[in-house]
Amino acid sequence: MAQSVCWSAVAGGVTAPVGFQAAGITAGLKDSGKPDLALLMAPHNAVCAGTFTTSVVRAACVDLCAERLQTSEGFCRAVLINSGQANACTGDRGLIDSQRATQVLADRLGLSSDQVLICSTGVIGVPIPMQLLLAGLDPLVEALAVDGGSAAAKAILTTDLVEKQIAVEAEIEGRIVRIGGMAKGSGMIHPDMATMLGYLTCDAGVPSEAWQAMVRRAVQRSFNAITVDGDTSTNDTFLAFTAGEPLPADQLDRLEQGVTLVAQYLARSIARDGEGATCLIEVLVEGAASEADALQMARTVCGSSLVKTAVHGRDPNWGRIVAAAGRSGVDFDAQAVSLWIGEHQLMVNGQPLGFDREAAATYLRARASGHYLDDDAVVIRLLVGSGPGQGRAWGCDLSDQYVRINADYTT
Amino acid sequence: MAQSVCWSAVAGGVTAPVGFQAAGITAGLKDSGKPDLALLMAPHNAVCAGTFTTSVVRAACVDLCAERLQTSEGFCRAVLINSGQANACTGDRGLIDSQRATQVLADRLGLSSDQVLICSTGVIGVPIPMQLLLAGLDPLVEALAVDGGSAAAKAILTTDLVEKQIAVEAEIEGRIVRIGGMAKGSGMIHPDMATMLGYLTCDAGVPSEAWQAMVRRAVQRSFNAITVDGDTSTNDTFLAFTAGEPLPADQLDRLEQGVTLVAQYLARSIARDGEGATCLIEVLVEGAASEADALQMARTVCGSSLVKTAVHGRDPNWGRIVAAAGRSGVDFDAQAVSLWIGEHQLMVNGQPLGFDREAAATYLRARASGHYLDDDAVVIRLLVGSGPGQGRAWGCDLSDQYVRINADYTT
Repeated sequence: MAQSVCWSAVAGGVTAPVGFQAAGITAGLKDSGKPDLALLMAPHNAVCAGTFTTSVVRAACVDLCAERLQTSEGFCRAVLINSGQANACTGDRGLIDSQRATQVLADRLGLSSDQVLICSTGVIGVPIPMQLLLAGLDPLVEALAVDGGSAAAKAILTTDLVEKQIAVEAEIEGRIVRIGGMAKGSGMIHPDMATMLGYLTCDAGVPSEAWQAMVRRAVQRSFNAITVDGDTSTNDTFLAFTAGEPLPADQLDRLEQGVTLVAQYLARSIARDGEGATCLIEVLVEGAASEADALQMARTVCGSSLVKTAVHGRDPNWGRIVAAAGRSGVDFDAQAVSLWIGEHQLMVNGQPLGFDREAAATYLRARASGHYLDDDAVVIRLLVGSGPGQGRAWGCDLSDQYVRINADYTT
Repeated sequence: MAQSVCWSAVAGGVTAPVGFQAAGITAGLKDSGKPDLALLMAPHNAVCAGTFTTSVVRAACVDLCAERLQTSEGFCRAVLINSGQANACTGDRGLIDSQRATQVLADRLGLSSDQVLICSTGVIGVPIPMQLLLAGLDPLVEALAVDGGSAAAKAILTTDLVEKQIAVEAEIEGRIVRIGGMAKGSGMIHPDMATMLGYLTCDAGVPSEAWQAMVRRAVQRSFNAITVDGDTSTNDTFLAFTAGEPLPADQLDRLEQGVTLVAQYLARSIARDGEGATCLIEVLVEGAASEADALQMARTVCGSSLVKTAVHGRDPNWGRIVAAAGRSGVDFDAQAVSLWIGEHQLMVNGQPLGFDREAAATYLRARASGHYLDDDAVVIRLLVGSGPGQGRAWGCDLSDQYVRINADYTT
């Protein structure tokens, strides 16, 4: 087992780690006049790990990021983020625009274009107004600052109700290591007009391969464990930069705890800020054959429309939870299942228990959305056997408000 | 290519084919006082093909059906259907109740219990009131009639708004062959309190193996091609009986057309009767590598919450359709995609087209739900390449009414 270390919250978001700068400005890409152009700049020799949408239909910027991370072997330095237009399904023009934006920015920063990435979020099928974006690059670079994390976190939002950023620090081997993060996602985890974007920064030196593996595992346990409507975006991107004094190999487990913590915080924030959502739902599956099995079951329960509507109605309708687990594609013994909603046990070894329905409903009603409180999630726990696999997933309830938001989006 | 034959509608539902009898009565299982106990009886030497839920959490009655169909090699004669309680997640008692009900019915019918099946639909976790069910068996058997199809179709419903039955006939090699069907499903295809149940009858003699294969293909192209919320029920069951004068082997293709037609009619009826639904959605995918690929893409688009809410808002938001196809798990060339909503082409070879948004919205608005009209579906067509694979799936829109129905179900 990895030794634990205490990570505590600090200010600064993605610019909390030493050497990182960021900026966020209004370039006029959004009709609303809100900030819409952000830049995150990593120090020399930063290592970057990237994770992207698995959709076959990917935005041009996603193709460009994946290719450049490969070409540069992870040594990318800067990422430009525009909000308002997703630059997906924009035909050949999409890639040309992405290349042009990063080329101009690279020249301005004195970098090769291979070291500059771009992420876009907004409406699918609408091209980026390039005149406005290019005109914004000079003021954007001028705004770069070691305390620019908050400005950047604001400029990447689309329909989000709140900004999502965090920074933590811990003492490892006598030195302070900091990890920062920001994300956006407007309530549904993978909506077409509200891509999931996430960024993480860290000031510890970590070999590229170890960093890639650590980030991959953290993403699996965070962004890949949230679901709102199962619709994977064409633009989903998570980029994690680290640069700094090398950390001893035997301390990497401790660092990974921090990386996972930050990624999970951001992922939960996205689920909680669900369009129309009134509460965060956390599903914990224990006793599965493997972590992958447990995660798959937890995500299936979290994604079930019937579970989501039941929670919205504050209805402890446990049959829906077990039914969703049953269709998750994971094999398990239905006779071994025990189930809890909060502290209320509803099932043991596949047999229903008499339970206080009113008390369970009261537990659910108490979980109304206070944004960003840590203890307000509706917790559903499933014990499905005696295996070592444990997994946790997050989602939110499904409300009539969600339907109205998405039915009326462009008309 | 199979020769076509003209199937025309006739009355009688599952009892239209020669030799079949059915009944439906009120046994008091439902609080509403509506019919809740049905019996379908096949003639001597009938062959039965069964398809069941793929959920790991299966109702006791599903286990019993699957086992008996295997033991009897498909030579089952009768199926008892109770609505009101799903008899799923009812512990050991569930199987005991299913066995007892079929044993008593088998004695009454002079059959071995292995020849009698049982299907249950209703709330999960609630046992069947066995006293009431057993007391209902005598009047049920007495009510068996060669024109009992409608009574049975009514007694299997739960929250369905309309009954779902059909019968068709065609002349094959100088004789009339009839196929009948009935189904239930309360709008969501796989809701926990409203199982999908389907039954098909036919009066042609078909070797068991050929019948099983034909039914399996028809289910793939009908019930397995509808989706409402992706929640697979614990009780889903489709049973198809056939008995009669043997049909020449070279005529089986024609028969399969009829079987597929009936199964698709029933499946579409379930999607159209969606809880809160205001229209039927049909997604046609062409040019895929295989039929399985095409079906998977079509079902993914049909099941997308974003596509469903857009259609509900009568909004031709085509980006959501392409994004859903992209995350379907099927590999295809995004640059080869063309897209139509009704007659309106929105995309060609991966490039968006200028289109008359108002005309497309008008097309969508015209597709309000007239139940059981054949031409009222919102048709979405995706051409994804030049492969031979074609598939069609059906669903319905997602409305705020759906959320209210499911949020308020038991509270």
